[in-house]
Amino acid sequence: SDSYSLLILPGDGIGPEVMAEVVKVIDWFGANRGMSFDIMHGLVGGSSYDAHGTPLTDETMAQAQAVDAVLLGAVGGPKYDNLDFSVKPERGLLRLRKEMDLYANLRPAQCFDALADFSSLKREVVAGLDILIVRELTSGVYFGEPRGIHSDDNNPDNEGGRVGINTQRYTSGEIRRVARSAFELARRRSNRVCSMEKANVMESGILWREEVQWVHDNEYPDVELSHMYADNGAMQLVRRPSQFDVIVTDNLFGDILSDAAAMLTGSLGMLPSASLGASMANGRPKALYEPVHGSAPDIAGQGKANPIACILSFAMALRYSFDQGDAAADLERAVEQVLADGVRTADLMGPEGGTPVSTSEMGDRIIAAL
Amino acid sequence: SDSYSLLILPGDGIGPEVMAEVVKVIDWFGANRGMSFDIMHGLVGGSSYDAHGTPLTDETMAQAQAVDAVLLGAVGGPKYDNLDFSVKPERGLLRLRKEMDLYANLRPAQCFDALADFSSLKREVVAGLDILIVRELTSGVYFGEPRGIHSDDNNPDNEGGRVGINTQRYTSGEIRRVARSAFELARRRSNRVCSMEKANVMESGILWREEVQWVHDNEYPDVELSHMYADNGAMQLVRRPSQFDVIVTDNLFGDILSDAAAMLTGSLGMLPSASLGASMANGRPKALYEPVHGSAPDIAGQGKANPIACILSFAMALRYSFDQGDAAADLERAVEQVLADGVRTADLMGPEGGTPVSTSEMGDRIIAAL
Ligand SMILES: CC(C)[C@H](C(=O)O)[C@@H](O)C(=O)O
Ligand SMILES: CC(C)[C@H](C(=O)O)[C@@H](O)C(=O)O
Repeated sequence: SDSYSLLILPGDGIGPEVMAEVVKVIDWFGANRGMSFDIMHGLVGGSSYDAHGTPLTDETMAQAQAVDAVLLGAVGGPKYDNLDFSVKPERGLLRLRKEMDLYANLRPAQCFDALADFSSLKREVVAGLDILIVRELTSGVYFGEPRGIHSDDNNPDNEGGRVGINTQRYTSGEIRRVARSAFELARRRSNRVCSMEKANVMESGILWREEVQWVHDNEYPDVELSHMYADNGAMQLVRRPSQFDVIVTDNLFGDILSDAAAMLTGSLGMLPSASLGASMANGRPKALYEPVHGSAPDIAGQGKANPIACILSFAMALRYSFDQGDAAADLERAVEQVLADGVRTADLMGPEGGTPVSTSEMGDRIIAAL
Repeated sequence: SDSYSLLILPGDGIGPEVMAEVVKVIDWFGANRGMSFDIMHGLVGGSSYDAHGTPLTDETMAQAQAVDAVLLGAVGGPKYDNLDFSVKPERGLLRLRKEMDLYANLRPAQCFDALADFSSLKREVVAGLDILIVRELTSGVYFGEPRGIHSDDNNPDNEGGRVGINTQRYTSGEIRRVARSAFELARRRSNRVCSMEKANVMESGILWREEVQWVHDNEYPDVELSHMYADNGAMQLVRRPSQFDVIVTDNLFGDILSDAAAMLTGSLGMLPSASLGASMANGRPKALYEPVHGSAPDIAGQGKANPIACILSFAMALRYSFDQGDAAADLERAVEQVLADGVRTADLMGPEGGTPVSTSEMGDRIIAAL
């Protein structure tokens, strides 16, 4: 039967309250669609630090490795800003990505028609926007060695006497595997991939460009491939984002460009993400799903948060982890329905009005629409 | 008397034709404002490679070191795309920046009222926009060692067998000096600096944040300082750019964020930049001025290019190299006047029409307005 194991890590800030709505949705699919979910709960980020002195315990890490999919809320908050680098909330998330080897981070930037006016961009520039950024997630400057802050006392020219170092390092194999993910996804969309780097300045960017081209020429010659410098990519995303279908880029450029792309849509509270790794013995990929938005500590605990990004992250889990594309599409349609009906959490409330709802009412409405 | 030496490096693509208009403007100031200019001409980028097999000769490098200011057009073009990394057009520009030690790159992102509708952003989001990005320009991943592409044959897990490496490296002294530039500039503007890095992920970002804070606390406590992660910075630039006054950031983030900011204004053909180093014996800073736009090979040689960004770069030279703030303001006003009169190169021609002019007619109009 269709039985799936899930590890739920609500995290910090609004994480727990948006995740509570996802749990309702999961229960609905369990009760009505013949799926059975085996759900575990755990801590990550600041909430784990508060309980255990570390942003991710080894036990939780082991559970994450064993389940079919991890659902994560959000991590971080001002309370943890002055913690040592090694125990900051982010380290929990980065450890999950690295140890589960989740190399392909899928970040759709979609503009929902009912919300197009929320964008700071003109409606005609963003209406109907549907691009997918595939960000490499387990390598590059996020994880490269050597790294650290050292004293540089023997250098009399260095006022301050310190030096900070990080290493951007990519192997050809790391580039090829994420390129394959991008090409595969493009085939199911508009069949176009644009790869972004700074090959005019960085040798790691030259390798990136060559390996993406190699994968294209040898394995995906049917997909249209173009290359763009990342600075121009940032410009083009602002100028005419609809020119893109799938964008593939490295960990750091992907971090920045996908956030810019997300903001173009005007509805950050709507955007899900999937982080996928290699297939496990059961044929399912290692996978973690999380909303693109952060932990929003300023509104945490007030029932104001929009749970849709987190709910749509579960829809991605249905599609990519459980091969339940129809169920995913049903859930996405339910969300669109609720938006079309004018149901709005605070972040979605515009001049044209609508029915204001709390986090949990939004969850209920989506379930009703299912 | 007010005598200034200039090295003019038109470069590639539209570089020569926009620079020809700058020369007219320089001549006007020479003839009418009691300034005298000693002008040298040289090659950089692809045009230097074509003539000398290198994107910058040692002679031109030496001239650049000796003059009061360098004016550069643009470098690069498809013709040079397949050259070896070491002789690509960009290397000429990067060598100038590095050997002249031009550590502070000033990139104003200003939205001209007459052109606000060109932006892909809503008029109310960008009208009146005036932010200044101060980008560190001589260090970071652009220049850090080790770097290169190596074989990784002993690693059986690395399909493809290569590895690409770059190093992000900043000393505290490098961070402090560019921070000082940013604080100085902020004092002459709205007195606010926002520093951007990824201190949540990169140790070099932690050092960046700490050193900027140190300079603030010890030397510029009167300036308002905030810190932002660069991914959030990219978002906020799209969401509400007018929240910023001066942004200070590193070489790579600055490359991407300043291009995104430039595109917000909708008029890339209008934006100048200054790259400044330490003061020379005569009290003037080492300096290079160039438009933010590229070499636009697709329209080169057709008289279509907009010379305003390059002309406004000369206005920055008047202000920052020659301490001729009044002359700079006059030139900027002349540009605004011409725009208000509806004079338009092709890139500025919108639905509301205007008087279409060529590159050289635009130069003439600006001189007439002076
Ligand atoms: C929280 C942080 C470590 C993370 C990143 O930089 O990858 C976040 O910005 C993201 O994009 O998921
Ligand atoms: C041409 C290129 C080397 C350069 C850079 O990356 O710095 C350009 O993009 C810029 O911003 O001036």
